[in-house]
Amino acid sequence: MSAIVSRYRLPVAILALVGAGGAAVLIGRPAIAEAAGVEGETAFVLNTFAFLLWGALVMWMCAGFTMLESGSVRTKNASMICLKNIGLYSIAGLAYFVIGYNLMYVDVVGDFIGSFNLLYQASDAEIALLDGADNAGEVVGDGYATMSDWFFQMVFVATAASIVSGALAERVKMWPFFLFVLALTGVIYPIVGAWTWGGGWLADLGFQDFAGSTIVHGVGGWAALAGILVVGPRLGKFRADGTVKPTPPSNILVVTLGVFILWFGWFGFNGGSQLAIASAIDAVSMSHVLVNTNLAAAAGVMAALAISRFVLRRIDLFAGLNGAIAGLVSITAGPTMTDHWWAIIIGAIGGVICTLGIRLLERLRLDDVVGAVPAHLFAGIWGTLAVCIAAGGDFGAQIAGVAAIGAFVFIVSYVLWRGLAMTVQARVSAEVEQLGQDAGELGIEAYPEFILMPEEVAEMAPPPPPEPDQEQAPAEA
Amino acid sequence: MSAIVSRYRLPVAILALVGAGGAAVLIGRPAIAEAAGVEGETAFVLNTFAFLLWGALVMWMCAGFTMLESGSVRTKNASMICLKNIGLYSIAGLAYFVIGYNLMYVDVVGDFIGSFNLLYQASDAEIALLDGADNAGEVVGDGYATMSDWFFQMVFVATAASIVSGALAERVKMWPFFLFVLALTGVIYPIVGAWTWGGGWLADLGFQDFAGSTIVHGVGGWAALAGILVVGPRLGKFRADGTVKPTPPSNILVVTLGVFILWFGWFGFNGGSQLAIASAIDAVSMSHVLVNTNLAAAAGVMAALAISRFVLRRIDLFAGLNGAIAGLVSITAGPTMTDHWWAIIIGAIGGVICTLGIRLLERLRLDDVVGAVPAHLFAGIWGTLAVCIAAGGDFGAQIAGVAAIGAFVFIVSYVLWRGLAMTVQARVSAEVEQLGQDAGELGIEAYPEFILMPEEVAEMAPPPPPEPDQEQAPAEA
Amino acid sequence: MSAIVSRYRLPVAILALVGAGGAAVLIGRPAIAEAAGVEGETAFVLNTFAFLLWGALVMWMCAGFTMLESGSVRTKNASMICLKNIGLYSIAGLAYFVIGYNLMYVDVVGDFIGSFNLLYQASDAEIALLDGADNAGEVVGDGYATMSDWFFQMVFVATAASIVSGALAERVKMWPFFLFVLALTGVIYPIVGAWTWGGGWLADLGFQDFAGSTIVHGVGGWAALAGILVVGPRLGKFRADGTVKPTPPSNILVVTLGVFILWFGWFGFNGGSQLAIASAIDAVSMSHVLVNTNLAAAAGVMAALAISRFVLRRIDLFAGLNGAIAGLVSITAGPTMTDHWWAIIIGAIGGVICTLGIRLLERLRLDDVVGAVPAHLFAGIWGTLAVCIAAGGDFGAQIAGVAAIGAFVFIVSYVLWRGLAMTVQARVSAEVEQLGQDAGELGIEAYPEFILMPEEVAEMAPPPPPEPDQEQAPAEA
Repeated sequence: MSAIVSRYRLPVAILALVGAGGAAVLIGRPAIAEAAGVEGETAFVLNTFAFLLWGALVMWMCAGFTMLESGSVRTKNASMICLKNIGLYSIAGLAYFVIGYNLMYVDVVGDFIGSFNLLYQASDAEIALLDGADNAGEVVGDGYATMSDWFFQMVFVATAASIVSGALAERVKMWPFFLFVLALTGVIYPIVGAWTWGGGWLADLGFQDFAGSTIVHGVGGWAALAGILVVGPRLGKFRADGTVKPTPPSNILVVTLGVFILWFGWFGFNGGSQLAIASAIDAVSMSHVLVNTNLAAAAGVMAALAISRFVLRRIDLFAGLNGAIAGLVSITAGPTMTDHWWAIIIGAIGGVICTLGIRLLERLRLDDVVGAVPAHLFAGIWGTLAVCIAAGGDFGAQIAGVAAIGAFVFIVSYVLWRGLAMTVQARVSAEVEQLGQDAGELGIEAYPEFILMPEEVAEMAPPPPPEPDQEQAPAEA
Repeated sequence: MSAIVSRYRLPVAILALVGAGGAAVLIGRPAIAEAAGVEGETAFVLNTFAFLLWGALVMWMCAGFTMLESGSVRTKNASMICLKNIGLYSIAGLAYFVIGYNLMYVDVVGDFIGSFNLLYQASDAEIALLDGADNAGEVVGDGYATMSDWFFQMVFVATAASIVSGALAERVKMWPFFLFVLALTGVIYPIVGAWTWGGGWLADLGFQDFAGSTIVHGVGGWAALAGILVVGPRLGKFRADGTVKPTPPSNILVVTLGVFILWFGWFGFNGGSQLAIASAIDAVSMSHVLVNTNLAAAAGVMAALAISRFVLRRIDLFAGLNGAIAGLVSITAGPTMTDHWWAIIIGAIGGVICTLGIRLLERLRLDDVVGAVPAHLFAGIWGTLAVCIAAGGDFGAQIAGVAAIGAFVFIVSYVLWRGLAMTVQARVSAEVEQLGQDAGELGIEAYPEFILMPEEVAEMAPPPPPEPDQEQAPAEA
Repeated sequence: MSAIVSRYRLPVAILALVGAGGAAVLIGRPAIAEAAGVEGETAFVLNTFAFLLWGALVMWMCAGFTMLESGSVRTKNASMICLKNIGLYSIAGLAYFVIGYNLMYVDVVGDFIGSFNLLYQASDAEIALLDGADNAGEVVGDGYATMSDWFFQMVFVATAASIVSGALAERVKMWPFFLFVLALTGVIYPIVGAWTWGGGWLADLGFQDFAGSTIVHGVGGWAALAGILVVGPRLGKFRADGTVKPTPPSNILVVTLGVFILWFGWFGFNGGSQLAIASAIDAVSMSHVLVNTNLAAAAGVMAALAISRFVLRRIDLFAGLNGAIAGLVSITAGPTMTDHWWAIIIGAIGGVICTLGIRLLERLRLDDVVGAVPAHLFAGIWGTLAVCIAAGGDFGAQIAGVAAIGAFVFIVSYVLWRGLAMTVQARVSAEVEQLGQDAGELGIEAYPEFILMPEEVAEMAPPPPPEPDQEQAPAEA
């Protein structure tokens, strides 16, 4: 039984049994693919090619996070965000190669953690094939090339880490951040992955999370939330009089570009999570996944724009952009439904939750610079539960998964952030924060030739009053 | 007969007859693909995968339009362009799901419009397959997954809408614009599509438009032109003394990035319009399409740069960038020729037409902020007629198609823009326009921390005089 | 023997012999692919599709170079960089179509140069197939569509040219630069290509360069170095007192975006250079290529960041970004190893070499604006030699290839740059250089509405002193 709940590591025997088209067996989804149409080696090639292409597209999402975050922070911290993001992607890839993948996928079935072996490489059969052996038939039985799967999994772990950098922007120090990323991508995320996609206890329980509303986005969101609590808000963000200092994105074009990159990359994120293309059923299902992903994102944008009219008293572009992300996160746990209007509803609710969540965090005086917690964690929880509505998930199992993963990641992350704060300090000094991390910590400014507004001026200047003939009244941003 | 003029909705029987490789039958092109090589389910998988991959790449073009437009407008309107673009992509996807696709493709053959049914979903056979039925053979007969085709069509309608936002930038109000997009993507574009790719009367007439020089780019261009006429030029753009106020792009890097995104995405736009990959003939033809697309774009750039030397009295980067777009639009109607130098000629002429067109619009005192009408409409007409040169199109049918689609879209759009102008007002107030839509209508500035030049100063400062040792003399931009 | 050293132009007979999956025969690599699994026409389709998809992704790298370079130069030269890059991509594509591909691949075997025929088109068999002939079987024997290969090759030549524009930024004139690009992409690069991938004398010698550490990146780097020597440093870059004027990137976000684009595109660059996907061995090998490519880049980032701490006395983002490029270039000559930790080592050393190389060039008073020579030439040499470590290359052959190609490209480029300098002048006047090429040569400024710092001020203002509680001390940037 545990074999079919495993996301990726189907035993060869099972795969051979159901034929080349059978790799699409997902957590809790019955093994239905038996079309014998696509011949073995062709299927192997197609599934591998899909992992590589969709995986490359997911890697591109890291550029999206980088743009979203570096355009959202104030100019004085934008270089640091660039460094953190290219650094985290590099660390994630290395850590997942050295230990992460083994912890997550190797010999986990029915257990809590995988193998502690270091490094990862192709199966012996594949290496023999490359060395000239005449064993293509044996290799083909796996359904896809070993390292294509590794590649696809690797870009997912980087996504989880990307979520953290935005939430903690403008005050978390570089080295502690990188250390946290190392732990998150080398150990924390892989353990959660072992419980679920690796075939561990949550998989046995029937927990469903197609592409990771909770396993990827929830994990990133919980880790970010723990960091927010430990590191604290930016200086002056929450004023003594109870008001919140506005810190609008410094470069909206770049933020928008980032969201488009993420939307584009999400086709790889969700589409590739079908895990196979080489059968009619996989191809049909993958098509559904892309359609539902796009509809949910579109609905997230429109719902967030609409609700922002009431919550924020204006049509808020930033809310709309976050609404896209929230819609995407919401559909990620179960994007295969054939009634596509469910995707619209799920995405729209995700967009609303995100917009309300941004407000909620402000009320709680939690400082999440880019809205990562509302967009990834809140919408991720919603999406994971929404699997029960349209994709036949078990509510108990979904709740158990959300709670267990949340508790584990939050507690471990909190302890880790605390430890970092007590040893190497997690937060920059007040002087560096005032000056900006770019000049104070990095020594490279993002826009050295542009004349920038002193922060006090930027803060004092409210947007101009609404025009009488306008439909929507801009709030005091 | 009408079966083979349909772009996408080949009856299953025909498809089954010509074999899995036969989906490449295009408007007016004889059904030649009969290579029996690729087995049915493999072909189904490959064609579906091609729709999804190329379709995702076409979605990415929306980011290209967003960057092109938001970098072209003045900084005070850049946020609004970002909002309009992510909004229009969302609306287009939802409208096309709710009604557009049905109007365009369902039961149109020989007629003027498709079905008025709401919503769209996979074929019954596919849904049964997903539910566990053993009917892969039946599903495979369609040649590709239903929703993969929907996805690919959906990103096209968004492209048409993207064209409008740039032309009307800096003065059209957000809500009227969104209402227009809703009509364009839900009804106007689908009706034109029904006439042509849907198998309607223009298809019967032999009208050929491979990927939409007229059906997509012409439609967007006509809708933009109607809006330009109704909404009017930006305040001060055309001065009383007959001169034109220069409004150079505010961020050339972002404009250039946008053009590269569009060029990249166009490989999906034209390549995917082969509609199939799973036969030797389709693979060969798709290769030709990509080569010709790239050559036409390259020629468009060089021709526009060269002609700008004479028309604008300098090598003009903005003309060159628009030349790329114009070259791409020009080749879109017929990119399959085997004599590739034709692609160079067609693209080069497109680039020249676009550069001259920019001047022409200024003479006519029509204010098209990004040159959308020259690049998409003028080059689109040229490209649609050029099909007769290298791809064997019938001149009468091409003229009829261009004229009928132009008249229909322009008239309906004009009426619609007029209606919007008379009811909710299509244009922002003079105060908001002066202030910029970002501050006046949205309340979010694009670059809040950058110190920007007051508009009067920017206008007064001409580029410095040409250097004596320089080959090209910069004009007074 | 020469047949199997040819990268792309395997004679049809050989291909037919080894079966459809045999196109992966690389320079010096024994022909091992013989899995008979994937049927002929399916293999043809898959290989063609891979060329088109990966090729499109390589085209996207041109946007990466454009962003990397235009964000690295000072704002007053950023428009010119955009123009040069879209121009060079256009010229490269046209020149390679008119003559380059024929010089490189047509009838080269065992020789020094290919055919002097002009233009290129599909094989007669393919054209006949498109015209309705029933010869799919004959076409399929080639293994892939002719023009899909042309497309994939074309985007490589553009990459080589892209390297030059960054190195010579801020002072080389537009027209001389374009003339040089014409020679480089139409003649110089194709001749080097004929020696190697075209099956010429270096291929016979056993020289190995999987995707072009030397053939693409070395060629671009040598051409850039020759240009740097002839054109000379920017005014004031190297001061009389021996110090170097800092010229930090003007827009770090855009530079970072460029590096992410390049990293993303490199999956196509290296992955596509497997040249086939349609067999188990090709699919497995391509998976290895992507994994090693990513690991090398990640290691390049981290190694460059670490070494920058010592060499530049701070964690340097720009060094880290260049480290990614250097890691990618380093692995490009031999990315197929099954022991993936070799990729980490090779990439890390590449990152270190690049960072040290940046310093070395400064010492030598050679002005390479974006670090193109260290990242592409130095790391390219390293990568080409590193093939002997992990991928079984012959050290003598590798040295011979690096030396012969280096000598040829450097000498020809040097003569060409000298000729340009003596006739049309390669360098802008001192006045234009002071003013910036955007205003002085183009008449279009990159950011016309932003208030920019006068250069003297930017130069005078050092970054603030390091904070005492910071781990890394920012140097005087």
